Amino acid sequence: MPPIACPAGFLANGVRAGIKVSGKPDLALIHAPQGATAAAMLTRNLVRAAPLEVTAKHLAASAHDIRALLINAGCANAATGAEGMDRAARSVRALANRLDCSEAQVLVNSTGVIGQQLPIDRLESALPALVDGADTQGLVRAAEAIMTTDTRMKIVSIDAGTARAPFRVTGIAKGAGMIHPDLAPAVPHATMIVALLTDAVATPDALQSSLAAACERSVHRISIDGDTSTNDAVFALASGVSKVDDRSALEAAITEALRQLAMAIVRDGEGATKLIHVEVTGAVDQSDALRVARTVATSMLVRTAVAGGDPNWGRLLAAIGRSGARVDLATVRVQADGVELYARGGPAPITPAQRSTIFKNEQVEISIDLGLAHARDEFFTCDLTEEYVRVNAEYTT
Amino acid sequence: MPPIACPAGFLANGVRAGIKVSGKPDLALIHAPQGATAAAMLTRNLVRAAPLEVTAKHLAASAHDIRALLINAGCANAATGAEGMDRAARSVRALANRLDCSEAQVLVNSTGVIGQQLPIDRLESALPALVDGADTQGLVRAAEAIMTTDTRMKIVSIDAGTARAPFRVTGIAKGAGMIHPDLAPAVPHATMIVALLTDAVATPDALQSSLAAACERSVHRISIDGDTSTNDAVFALASGVSKVDDRSALEAAITEALRQLAMAIVRDGEGATKLIHVEVTGAVDQSDALRVARTVATSMLVRTAVAGGDPNWGRLLAAIGRSGARVDLATVRVQADGVELYARGGPAPITPAQRSTIFKNEQVEISIDLGLAHARDEFFTCDLTEEYVRVNAEYTT
Repeated sequence: MPPIACPAGFLANGVRAGIKVSGKPDLALIHAPQGATAAAMLTRNLVRAAPLEVTAKHLAASAHDIRALLINAGCANAATGAEGMDRAARSVRALANRLDCSEAQVLVNSTGVIGQQLPIDRLESALPALVDGADTQGLVRAAEAIMTTDTRMKIVSIDAGTARAPFRVTGIAKGAGMIHPDLAPAVPHATMIVALLTDAVATPDALQSSLAAACERSVHRISIDGDTSTNDAVFALASGVSKVDDRSALEAAITEALRQLAMAIVRDGEGATKLIHVEVTGAVDQSDALRVARTVATSMLVRTAVAGGDPNWGRLLAAIGRSGARVDLATVRVQADGVELYARGGPAPITPAQRSTIFKNEQVEISIDLGLAHARDEFFTCDLTEEYVRVNAEYTT
Repeated sequence: MPPIACPAGFLANGVRAGIKVSGKPDLALIHAPQGATAAAMLTRNLVRAAPLEVTAKHLAASAHDIRALLINAGCANAATGAEGMDRAARSVRALANRLDCSEAQVLVNSTGVIGQQLPIDRLESALPALVDGADTQGLVRAAEAIMTTDTRMKIVSIDAGTARAPFRVTGIAKGAGMIHPDLAPAVPHATMIVALLTDAVATPDALQSSLAAACERSVHRISIDGDTSTNDAVFALASGVSKVDDRSALEAAITEALRQLAMAIVRDGEGATKLIHVEVTGAVDQSDALRVARTVATSMLVRTAVAGGDPNWGRLLAAIGRSGARVDLATVRVQADGVELYARGGPAPITPAQRSTIFKNEQVEISIDLGLAHARDEFFTCDLTEEYVRVNAEYTT
């Protein structure tokens, strides 16, 4: 991983606070000493983690001047009751004191095991080193500190704007399981956590609107296990230091950064060996296209077939049929990795040589043309392997 | 397995036709020489198997006098186009000739790999032995012949009625994967196949209505992998030989037989080691209760936690929160295997000794009291193990 500098206006860091049992880095900070506008998309899960309740309140009050984002891994601080709320508030208070800002200028989130209390003393003890060590090269340390079952850190940087008015969007992400984001603007909850930083100029409202649009084309089109987390959150912070104010260019760069991070999350899905891209065309409307794409991508039988490199395409047809979308078997065409499998109401003839190429690559392409009209959509997932079960049967113990 | 005789009026058999690659028995017959009234619940999956299209037509024409039910395993004859329809029709014609009845008096279904053509010549060659060998003791052979990835045959018999007016309901079932039934009256499609036989008296309409009600309390409350099959079907045949005409007693016996078979299917879920029963009480209405029960039971993270014997109950809370039901965290109580895990807005204190008992038994009991009103519902599933993935990654190859 080459070092990626923070966009102008930001410092970052990641340290070991002793929250993860493994002793690995587990506390990350994004610091905007001069302030940043902010927006967030937070989980719709009704069981929302305590830190996201705090974050929602602070965003409502201070989205025009946020100073810090604090994220710990190893403990989700979700379903932890009043005690969990107290501890989330204590973590914010301690950081605000250290940074000499108001509590409402601090956003916070957690990821890890649900239902355990945050070891707040250890977190507070680690804050001095976390703040003092933050620098413009610290994003890689922050990205490492938010990992849980991730096997790779996820970090992207997009250079955008024009030669005369350049700006950057840089993002870090974590997420490998409990991935099926269902986010609403500033309505908190993340096992997927993304933090996007930019030196572009954006009002909180414009940033929120661009972030919502970008999520619809990225994190809302991925699923690993169908479990929407209590802590999912995508944050965007804009320092404005570049002085570049170009809303459409910023939205495009945020979308591109989020798509790259979403793909990285799926590729690193728990136990995953292959990325699966399901593209649906020819639907009556977009919601039908999305319904088919999502149903195929979240089918355990499709995902295990891909894991086994087994072109058992009947499972694709079965998933299409139960999706709830308007479907006519006579017009459906199904391709996998460029090989036509089903067309004109029946199986397409395929040779053993063609068959041997299906579901074998690191990126599997499933194309479904419903043949009814012109709406399209897509969904991304990963294969379902024995390793996924192993990881999740042994997570807390 | 003790021999279970057919209810009066029925003969049964199962033979090897060479449809399964393994060479195991794969063709089953239920024969009602004097006729039986019939009803069926068939999958709502829009991709319906060819034999179920034939069955729906024949039920519409001849539900008052059905003579036979033919089921093959090893090939689902689904997504097989016009050729698949021809082969389903040919199998019916051959059996009707042999039994000297009309084609419309024969019901048919298939289970196995989707998208492959039925080896109709082999099926036809096996019909003479199948018909000639049918007898009152043949249900066990029929139950064996419809197995695919099942590890155990599933057969139940309920003695019902009164001492002076006794009747029986006997059923066979298959199903271990692609189990998430979504059935409609006589609208065909089965990887779960159930055949219920009774010597009670019932009109086709009464039988259909009782069967629909019984499904709602049994097979519509189970899921193994969330994949609704192209071939799911529950058949009921009533010979009337007992002369007992007691609709409510018959519906109760059909419900009991279907519940026992549904539990047997879940216990034999692909790779399963534990049955999971999720009971939800205190909901605002039944649809909310069902929503919570189904979301928890179909959560991959809950099912892998149970597989690992890992009381990671935060996953239960996350599933409750994303179910879409009306939920107030302050009133939710969650118990697992008799141990309270969450109550009054936070984790309940549990001892290591209590913790060590959770998710360890062959039947796991998850109880969720939403604490809002008085509606309830339930759902059954099995744990998700590495073996599930192994079975499904290697199914066709």
